Amino acid sequence: MKTHSIALIPGDGIGRDVTAAAWSVLQKAANSLGFALDCTEFPWSCAFYKETGAMMPQDGIETLRRFDAILLGAVGWPQEVPDAVSLHGLLLPIRKSFVQYANVRPHRLLPGVQGPLKADAFDILCIRENTEGEYSGAGGRIHQGTADEVAVETSIFTRTGVERILRFAFEQARTRSGRLASVTKSNAQKYSMVFWDEVTRQLAAEFPDIEVTSYHIDAMAARMVMAPESLDVVVASNLFGDILTDLGAAIQGGLGFAASANINPDKSAPSMFEPVHGSAPDIAHLGIANPIATIWSGAMMLDHLGETEAAAAIMSAVERTTASEIGTIPGKDRTEAITAAILAAL
Amino acid sequence: MKTHSIALIPGDGIGRDVTAAAWSVLQKAANSLGFALDCTEFPWSCAFYKETGAMMPQDGIETLRRFDAILLGAVGWPQEVPDAVSLHGLLLPIRKSFVQYANVRPHRLLPGVQGPLKADAFDILCIRENTEGEYSGAGGRIHQGTADEVAVETSIFTRTGVERILRFAFEQARTRSGRLASVTKSNAQKYSMVFWDEVTRQLAAEFPDIEVTSYHIDAMAARMVMAPESLDVVVASNLFGDILTDLGAAIQGGLGFAASANINPDKSAPSMFEPVHGSAPDIAHLGIANPIATIWSGAMMLDHLGETEAAAAIMSAVERTTASEIGTIPGKDRTEAITAAILAAL
Ligand SMILES: CC(C)[C@H](C(=O)O)[C@@H](O)C(=O)O
Ligand SMILES: CC(C)[C@H](C(=O)O)[C@@H](O)C(=O)O
Repeated sequence: MKTHSIALIPGDGIGRDVTAAAWSVLQKAANSLGFALDCTEFPWSCAFYKETGAMMPQDGIETLRRFDAILLGAVGWPQEVPDAVSLHGLLLPIRKSFVQYANVRPHRLLPGVQGPLKADAFDILCIRENTEGEYSGAGGRIHQGTADEVAVETSIFTRTGVERILRFAFEQARTRSGRLASVTKSNAQKYSMVFWDEVTRQLAAEFPDIEVTSYHIDAMAARMVMAPESLDVVVASNLFGDILTDLGAAIQGGLGFAASANINPDKSAPSMFEPVHGSAPDIAHLGIANPIATIWSGAMMLDHLGETEAAAAIMSAVERTTASEIGTIPGKDRTEAITAAILAAL
Repeated sequence: MKTHSIALIPGDGIGRDVTAAAWSVLQKAANSLGFALDCTEFPWSCAFYKETGAMMPQDGIETLRRFDAILLGAVGWPQEVPDAVSLHGLLLPIRKSFVQYANVRPHRLLPGVQGPLKADAFDILCIRENTEGEYSGAGGRIHQGTADEVAVETSIFTRTGVERILRFAFEQARTRSGRLASVTKSNAQKYSMVFWDEVTRQLAAEFPDIEVTSYHIDAMAARMVMAPESLDVVVASNLFGDILTDLGAAIQGGLGFAASANINPDKSAPSMFEPVHGSAPDIAHLGIANPIATIWSGAMMLDHLGETEAAAAIMSAVERTTASEIGTIPGKDRTEAITAAILAAL
């Protein structure tokens, strides 16, 4: 039997609730479709940090490297551990070390879900650069605490980094409508964003079948709200993609529905799948977190592992569940009830 | 009679249409309320650039300095003059030279306007830092055109710059609900945004009557769409404010309704008032541009000049006009018809 080895990192807060739910769904899909998921769970989290002084062991990255994929719940417990420590100690090192340069986030309304927009027919695939750009971590501060203090933060864009994410996006566009929107702000950021636009034009020549349009980030944010149906594949830098995908989560009814994949397209290291939402410590362990974002992320994981039939079966079960108004209203149904309904539909 | 001297810069494209409309409304308000507006029009624009090789004369800034305020239409004609030239040759130098550090943009639905959201009861005042930060223009590129190319773009935040915009925002919050939302991304940008958060906390101690909450830009973008009624005054950096105010324009029904003021709070130089929209060359001179954003910006100008009664009269005329469904649907009513209705309501 084909076996995929999965590293499961529940993380903090509702991360534990939603990964447990997702795991039961993935397991059932595997059982019925004749493959196996071999799960190794890692307790790396803020609680782990408080015990050991590190978010993961020194050899954590090397340990994860041998898995076929990683399923992660959520990282962060800001009341106890600063985000700067928890995120930079676990989530971000995984994304960067495993060159998961493509952060892929689908935005569409599941049946039965009421979004905040009047528009309800959109299907957007956001592709966010995940390793460099505005979140490079380069910068500093001088004259700290004085009237002359200055803080600088430098965005770093490499040709390798920009070209590979754009190439990935062009390829995704090819599997969908053939339309790609590239998002920059080249009228105000004349080094980084002009460079991105140039690489976009160069690649456009290689993909004559793809219709690519450049938008400024401000105009794109407005467009996602005013005319989301006009968009298909959207590619953006780390920061711009971060903003647009939370906006995408909003228009699809909230973070409870927003799935995400951190893909290493070269498959030289495992990819990681996680909901867009955070650890929401305030509702942790109350049993009311919506597991759909994580289940959807799990379906993306199976798809990535070649189990396309199982992925489709899970999404169909999720859609039949939301169509019958289960899991569609934040806080209404319990995690368990939603999971049970999806398992039953599977 | 009290006279305010106004520099009018119609600029490019529909900038000409909308400033002409706004001027007639401002003029009528002045006449009926017993003050005078002395207008000097400047042809500075992309057309001017094509004739003279500059977006404005060498002494343009000095010329403008003697006015009480500036009303600007729109700058840009990308087919003929790169944005990098037109914006950096006219719009941005005015904002920076006159230390118009507070870009103020109100977002609410005018009566009769159908926005894209189901929510219709919100009233947000966005305050955008307007002189530094992510649009500092610092950066560079090396190994250009090679596989090793790297582009860097540096955000520069000074204590002066951050403190003054936050102080302005705290003061605005005091005139409204007493609630202020400050927007950063300090979990990913640990120099610039952590600095902004620190200054926010310092000022919070000076304004104990103001309830200030920090949000990440991604969460704030989602909040503007999911729960806009929960927001009042929102303050953000140059880039984040740029994005949020286009989003604000979207939720208020589109750029045709989005007004903006570039304020020098110290009054050491003139402030500038302009619609958020651009020059829209494709519909220029067709007589279908919506003048409401510019008329609203003009009302903000009168307010700034102390003519609060006239400002209120104009906004009331605008609201009665949109309430009777004139100017509410993009492209439906002609510029002239909307302007005539507002003039009649005044
Ligand atoms: C928690 C944070 C660092 C993270 C990011 O910005 O990448 C999150 O917002 C996300 O979108 O995955
Ligand atoms: C045209 C551009 C430089 C400008 C800006 O980003 O400031 C515009 O988007 C705005 O919001 O006023």
